Order: sequence, then C-alpha cells, then structure tokens
Amino acid sequence: MAKEPKVALIPLGGLGEIGKNMMAVRYGENILLVDCGLMFPEEEMLGIDVVIPDITYLLENKEQLCGIVLTHGHEDHIGALPYLARQLDVPVYGTKLTLGLLQGKLKEQGLSETVDLRVVRPRDEIWIGPFRVELIRVSHSIPDAVALAIHTPVGVLVHTGDFKIDHTPVDGEVTDFFRLAQLGEKGVLVLMSDSTNVERPGYTPSERVVGQTFDETFRHARERIIIATFASNIHRLQQAIIAAHQYGRKVAVVGRSMVNVLSIAHELGYLYIPDGTLVELEEANRLPKNKVVFLSTGSQGEPMSALTRMAWGDHRQVEILPGDTVIISAAPIPGNEKLVARVIDLLFKKGAHVIYENVSGIHVSGHPSQEELKLMINLVKPKFFVPIHGEYRMLRKHAELAQAMGIPPGNIFVAENGQVLEFTRRSGRVAGRVTAGRVLVDGLGVGDVGNIVLRDRRQLSQDGILIVVVTISRDSGLVMAGPDIVSRGFVYVRESEKLLEEAREKVKDALDKCNEQGLSEWGAIKSQVRETLGKFLYEKTRRRPMVLPIIMEV
Amino acid sequence: MAKEPKVALIPLGGLGEIGKNMMAVRYGENILLVDCGLMFPEEEMLGIDVVIPDITYLLENKEQLCGIVLTHGHEDHIGALPYLARQLDVPVYGTKLTLGLLQGKLKEQGLSETVDLRVVRPRDEIWIGPFRVELIRVSHSIPDAVALAIHTPVGVLVHTGDFKIDHTPVDGEVTDFFRLAQLGEKGVLVLMSDSTNVERPGYTPSERVVGQTFDETFRHARERIIIATFASNIHRLQQAIIAAHQYGRKVAVVGRSMVNVLSIAHELGYLYIPDGTLVELEEANRLPKNKVVFLSTGSQGEPMSALTRMAWGDHRQVEILPGDTVIISAAPIPGNEKLVARVIDLLFKKGAHVIYENVSGIHVSGHPSQEELKLMINLVKPKFFVPIHGEYRMLRKHAELAQAMGIPPGNIFVAENGQVLEFTRRSGRVAGRVTAGRVLVDGLGVGDVGNIVLRDRRQLSQDGILIVVVTISRDSGLVMAGPDIVSRGFVYVRESEKLLEEAREKVKDALDKCNEQGLSEWGAIKSQVRETLGKFLYEKTRRRPMVLPIIMEV
Repeated sequence: MAKEPKVALIPLGGLGEIGKNMMAVRYGENILLVDCGLMFPEEEMLGIDVVIPDITYLLENKEQLCGIVLTHGHEDHIGALPYLARQLDVPVYGTKLTLGLLQGKLKEQGLSETVDLRVVRPRDEIWIGPFRVELIRVSHSIPDAVALAIHTPVGVLVHTGDFKIDHTPVDGEVTDFFRLAQLGEKGVLVLMSDSTNVERPGYTPSERVVGQTFDETFRHARERIIIATFASNIHRLQQAIIAAHQYGRKVAVVGRSMVNVLSIAHELGYLYIPDGTLVELEEANRLPKNKVVFLSTGSQGEPMSALTRMAWGDHRQVEILPGDTVIISAAPIPGNEKLVARVIDLLFKKGAHVIYENVSGIHVSGHPSQEELKLMINLVKPKFFVPIHGEYRMLRKHAELAQAMGIPPGNIFVAENGQVLEFTRRSGRVAGRVTAGRVLVDGLGVGDVGNIVLRDRRQLSQDGILIVVVTISRDSGLVMAGPDIVSRGFVYVRESEKLLEEAREKVKDALDKCNEQGLSEWGAIKSQVRETLGKFLYEKTRRRPMVLPIIMEV
Repeated sequence: MAKEPKVALIPLGGLGEIGKNMMAVRYGENILLVDCGLMFPEEEMLGIDVVIPDITYLLENKEQLCGIVLTHGHEDHIGALPYLARQLDVPVYGTKLTLGLLQGKLKEQGLSETVDLRVVRPRDEIWIGPFRVELIRVSHSIPDAVALAIHTPVGVLVHTGDFKIDHTPVDGEVTDFFRLAQLGEKGVLVLMSDSTNVERPGYTPSERVVGQTFDETFRHARERIIIATFASNIHRLQQAIIAAHQYGRKVAVVGRSMVNVLSIAHELGYLYIPDGTLVELEEANRLPKNKVVFLSTGSQGEPMSALTRMAWGDHRQVEILPGDTVIISAAPIPGNEKLVARVIDLLFKKGAHVIYENVSGIHVSGHPSQEELKLMINLVKPKFFVPIHGEYRMLRKHAELAQAMGIPPGNIFVAENGQVLEFTRRSGRVAGRVTAGRVLVDGLGVGDVGNIVLRDRRQLSQDGILIVVVTISRDSGLVMAGPDIVSRGFVYVRESEKLLEEAREKVKDALDKCNEQGLSEWGAIKSQVRETLGKFLYEKTRRRPMVLPIIMEV
C-alpha cells in the first residue's frame, strides 16, 4: 500500500502568546514558512529589547526551507526577519506594502541587499517549492494584508493572517469573499484563523467609524490638534489627512517611525496626501493654531516616544499648549495601560483637551470579533480547524466557537508552539514536537541573555547589590587591604553609613573566623562572607540584596 | 473688623493618584486627619513594597493634630497607619469593622497596644477637638463604610469616602440618603467626592448581581468551584458562602489575607457562616468534587498569591484539577492586566473552566458611576466642590460634571496634594502649599530608598553590572593584582569569555595610559576605566551596564 500523503503544520510562534507569529508548513522534504514576527518583552524580561522565535528547527532543516511568505507588514509578523533573514537565506514573498515596510527595516540593519524580496499581488499564484500559494485580500489595521491559500497535494490550507471583516474599508479593498467562498466550496483541508478578538461578541466596527470621529472632532476644535496613533495604521493616517484637508489644516509629522512609515506608504501609493498639506514641524509651529494637525507616535505611552516627550514637556520641537486637542487613537496594548494613563494625566495638566478611549469611535480593532470569525469558518468550510494568534485561553475559546458551529471536536487542534500537527486527506493528529521557543534580543546580543542573567537582573532590580572586596596575601593568607564594601541600588550610602560600617565589621568577623578555622579555599570563604552578610542585612533591613564577595590575591 | 473664620482642606494624598488617601482638615490651631492609606508601588519603583504619604506637615504641626477618622477598612485608606501611628500618636476613630481590620494589621506589627482605637457607630456624633464629626452610612465594596460630615464653625464639610449607591446591598445597610439630604437642605459648605469611576456613564450595578452570577454558576458546576476575589470584599464572600450552602457545598479558605479577614469579619458579626459550612483544606480535598468551594486570594494574579501558585501547580495544599470551575471575581487593577491574563491561561492549560471578566456580572465596582456622582451632588447641594480619589484626569472630569450640574467653576477646586484649600463661609481659594509627597517603603526601610537608589536599580535591571577590581601598590603605583572583572546580569559569562577577556585588556590599556600620563588620583583613574570600558561594551553589545571600578591599595 502506498504511503498516504501528509502535510504538517508546525507552529513556531503565535500560539499561546500575542506576537512572534510564525508557522512552518511541511510537505515531504519541503518547508514553507508563514510570517516571521517578533514580540515585545514581558515585564519580567528585564532589559530585553525584543523577543524572536527560536529557529533551531528551521536551521536543522535548512536545505528543506524553500521560502517565506508574509501576510502583512506588522512587527509581530515581519519584525524578526531583520534578525533571521541572513540565516534563513530564502526568498521572501509578500504584497508591495508589506515588503516595502520590511525593506525599510532591513535597510536600517544594512541588510537591504542581502534579502531576496518578491512582490506578489492578491489573487496571483506563486509556486514555492511544491506549494502553490495564493494571496487573498483581507481587511486589517494595515493596508495590503492578505490571507493565504496554500495548495498542497494533500489539500488546501487556508491561513487567515490577521484579519477583520470591514465592509467599508478606507482604501475600498474589500475582503475577497468570493475566493474564500470558492475555496470553501471546492474543499479546504485546514483553516488556521486569527483568535486575537475571540472574546468579543458581535462585529468589530469599520475603520470608517474613526474617520467620522475625526470629522466630528475637527469640526469642533478651535486650536491645534495632535493625533497619536500606530504609525502602521495607514488607513487611519489617511483619514486624519483627509479630515485635515477638509478643515483647512496643514499636517506635520512627529516621531521617527511615523515619518518612516508615512514616507514609504506615500511613495508606494498607499497614502493620498493632497498637495501642500504636509508641512515641516518648524512651519507648523508658526501656523495659526486652527490651521494645523500633528500626527505623532506615542499612542502606547512608550517612554521615549514623541507624545510622551511632549507630555513631559521635553520634546525639542513640539510643545503642548493649553487648548490643544490631543486625540489618542488607539487602545492600550495589555501591559501599557498605566503608561498611557500617565501620559493622559500629564496632557490634562498642561491644559490640553484629551480624547482617548473614553470616547467611542476613537479607535477600532483590526481583528475579527465572534461574528466575523463565524463568517470566516462558514466561508472556508474547513475539514480541520486550528486557532492561531492568541493567548491560550483565546485559542480555547476559538475552538469552542468552531465546535459550536459543527466542526467535530476531534477535527479541532489547540496546539502549542513546537507541536507538529500532521494531516492526511482524512485525518489529523499531533505527531511529535520540534524545538520552539523564545530568543531574547538585548542590544546586539541575540540569545545571550538567558535565565541566569534575567534572574540576576531581577534580584539587582529589587534590592541592589553589595560588593565586598578584600585583598589577601598569597603567602600569609592575611588580609592586606579591605574589606571594602561598595553598594549600588541598596540604600542611599550617605544616609546609611552606620549600617555599612556594621556590615564591614560583620565581614571582618567572618574573615577572622575563616582564618581561625584554617579555611583557605576561596569558594568557602566567599560563601561564608555571603551568608553572614546576607543574614545581617536581612535582619536589619528585611531586604535581600545580591552580595558579591571578591577576593584579590597579592 | 473681626477676622472671618476659615477652614482649610489640605490633601496629603489621594489627588492625582489612586491610593494613599489622606486629607487634613485644619480649623484654627487644630488638625483632623481623614484616612491614612498606602498605595502599591508604580512599575518603576523597583523593589519597593508600599508607598505611604509624606507626613512632614503633620509632624511639624504635631501638637495641632487632634485625631484621625477612617472612612472604611481598605488598604488605601488605613494601610499607612501601621507605619505612621506611633509618630502621629492620636486617637483613631472609625466603625467597628474598619477598626477591627486595622487592629489585625497593627497586631502583625506588634502595635496593637500602642494605638488608641475608638469605635463609632454611623449617625453617632463625636467631638474631635473643635470638629463635630458624624459618620454616615454609604455602600462600598467593604461593609461598614461611611461618609463623614465634619461640622466646623465655618460650615459643614462632607467627605464621601469611597462609595457607591447600592439600592440592594448584601447586608441591607442602605446609604443614609436622609442624613445626606438633610445636611444638604441645611447647607453644606464643601463636598469632597470620590472620583474613581467618573469616566463611567450610568450606574454601577448592585453587588447582588454578583450573587446572581454565583447562583447561576453553582447551579451548573458539576465539580469543584474555586472563587478568587478580594479578601476585604466581605459582601462577596458572604454571597459565595450562601451559594455554597444552598447548593450543599462546604467552603474552604485559601490564602493568608483571606483567612485573616474572614475570621475578623466573622468574629465581629459581619459575616454569617451557616454551621458546619466551613471546613479545613485537608477535609475539602477529601470531599466529593461537587461538594466543595474554595475561597482564595489571588484575583489580581499577584505572583505569591494562592491562586497564582495553584495555577503554576506549586501550591502545597490545593491542586487545580481538570473540570474545576475557577471564578475570578474581580477586575484587574490597572497594571495587573498581564498578571491576571497569565494566571487565566495557566488555569485553562490545567483543564479548568475559568470564568473571569468575560462574563458580565462576575464583578461589580465599589465606586460610583456618573449618575451616582450626580445624585451625591444633588443630595448634598454643596457651595464648594472638591473632587478627590482619582488620577488627575478623573478629578478634571468630576469637576466638569459638577460644573455641568450648576456649581460655578470658581467654586470647584481641582487641587494637588499639598495645596491648601482655604474656605470662609462665602469664598474659597488656594492658600499656599505644604510639604506632601510619597515615602517609599522597602522592607524595614521607610524613606531610605530615594531617586538615586531607584536610578541605580533601574540601570542594574536593564543591563546589569560589571565590577572591575584592581589592587595597586600604595608606594609604586603599580598594579599588584587584577584587573579582575566580575559581571552580574550582563551576559552569561561562560558564553562570553572572549568579550570579558577583551574587556580586561581594555582596562589594562586604560590603566597603563593613566600610568603614562602620571595620573595617580583614584577618582580620575576610575572615571578613565569607566569611560573606556563603557564605550567598548556599548560598541560590542549596544548595552550600557553599570561599570563599577574598585581600586584596592596595598
């Protein structure tokens, strides 16, 4: 009997977490990669800049990798490529804007020449190894987003990317219902669908709603308007620019990523800017107050962003003036709530009129709510269902939703990153596991900060460090200098001289005791010092700073 | 002309922040203090346990302080007393439960004998110095909460405390509308009112709604039920206990603060527990799965709390089993969203059925929404209005709401902590400022961690530390030992030996250069080392660890 053909889905990111989306599709000796995103560090990942997927599995099977296809240009779908493109070294496919934004990032890393980028239009089909891949237009909070149909000898796999159902998209590019429905009619083996908003009932409102709110706000504003939003939400920038134009205002752009994205989107034809609308910041500052709009970064309250600097009054070019209307056109990403709240408070204190989440229609999500998820399932009518993109509870909710719509529970797979989901034409199963995980990026270091370093940073951040240095004679074993104690992040030294002096005495005693006991092994002496001092400090302060004994030998 | 009598409100906490509520009321040479709360540290206050108000002003005027009156027993209203009671050293007034909870805290600190606690019943009047103070029943998320009417020769001041309008409170103790209205009818000089929920339109639902949700959940649950909520929400514990009793389940209590509060509330008669309902954990674990309910701490995903430990599978006594129903009956406090989400995810992974914010009616707020705030203003009909308890934007919103109801803008004061608001019978004004602020508590240290220590902790937490030790001859200036480099929280040393060796060489070069230049002043040598090494490390790693040179002299 001939072996039944099999196709495997191997999530390397995007399951049980938000961000770092990456899915490997394997057929025979061929691997196609969908997306290559990064995520931003969790709170406990101290000092970490970004988190990228562990690609051990891909590197171990490098000769099998035949290409990477991107669904859209958000960081959590393309952001790891600047770190990994050189190692992966295969062509990268995507729509024009997606690759344009990627190219911008690659340029910053000096990698623009090294990656083979291939622009594909929606409905075009491309062959990547044995995979026939088709890009299918969907709506999202960035233009030129697509779902994928991956045709394999086993069956068709549909990967939604990130999507929403927007019946009145700003660029007029409606989700390609026909293709999705046609694929469904012909038969789809597996649907992988975006779970981010599965907890929300109903429908996600159209992006146009925000345009209406802008219009309303512009109509009433008598002085300057400052809009903070995600740089990549080009539809929203478009609506702000149109509103500005209609109400006779000029537009100035603040914040590096806003300037970059706006120029790429404009250059590639994704943004219409009426002639003469865009002005430099200097000019904007000279215009009458009712003639200007600033588009700014900082909608998440990020400490170094333009809006946050304005709020603190230390932005070099833009100052918040009483009477300014500040629109924060975004919802705080989980974890950023307090940062955003602080910026709002500071803006209020400067006398600005702040419009934020409290006004409905100032932001809409780019992800599908429950009714949209149901529509996707009914369009695609898959045999098997794999919820993707979301924390674990969301994947579970999405599975329940699919089951409630009639997909048998045995055909639904709530997987973890690294699990291999193997499908034949008739069956699906979990078939083992490959290496998957997180790689932490800190500055230029990729993966050199692990648990030990993070644990140390954690301890240092809580109670600081005490360094005990003593110079000991190699010959006599006698103390030649010290013990000296230096502390950082523990107590303010000038006000705690007595405590530190007592600590020094404790160390001396410990050293004397070591000497009496004839202890000469450094490790033993150090742990004696560490223990004595740690105990003393805890008794006195109820804190546990890191105690680091250093012995110098002369 | 006789001097017009004046009363001053001096907020020492609770304005522009959530928590740390404290208001001084001054008449002549007398100060009455309302509440004495703590707040939990902001994210950037690394290693800090709690934040209490700066009481410099009160200590400078200690002989004027005649008493402290508490509105209710939440941490943000009573929690600073264990730190400050000894210094303030005046009688503390409050309702029975409020003082019972405070006494529990004082006991833990060995202070139960040192504080003069005086129980007052609602509608009773007490004289505290020249102030006639009346406690007025209000609803809140803890029983025995009161507003205050402070009668002064200048006029009546009404302080709402924290409140909500609950027409069907669990304990039947309805807000004393009559007294509030009667005071309003006779004339109130100033109303200070809770701004926490001013951004929410409409009404806050009754606590009973949660009881109905419990009932519904209990009716359907076939296995164990675990409810996590705030220990102090005794109404909610009551409803859980009643539901358990009705559905034939026993109740076991998990988590230290839950055990403490439950026993105090029960002892003081604020909690009805049907005979035989409460069981020990060991017994609960032996009962059939459909016969038990656990009441647990951890509704905020606090890392060391009972529920979080259960979710990670390292609670010693309670294990999450597949089929358990876990109810998280709380909304995440801003800043805790990600902690809570992680616990939910872990519970899902253990196969529990988790009911959280996604289910309406699983939690209601204890603070008043806009319509309730309006009712308070219309009951009390104050001449002057001071919004309290909230971030700055909320105070502003509350001021706008009061203005929209007809209070003239000149009679509304959005103040900052430390500002003195002075009122005569006819006028109000900001009359200067006293010392106010935050004191950070870390372990036993109250106020010994300031900006420098926090800045160091911040730097240590981001990129760690490199310590460079060198022993130099006092006589010759020659290097006798070292330079040795020790790092923590920077890179994992075993994998970065080459980098650290290069760093050592850089330090050697720097020391040689100092020698050549005849530099012998330690400060100069140290800064040379710090600069050279800092630059080298930044080039190599794009990180900025703390560089700490230590020179030992022999």
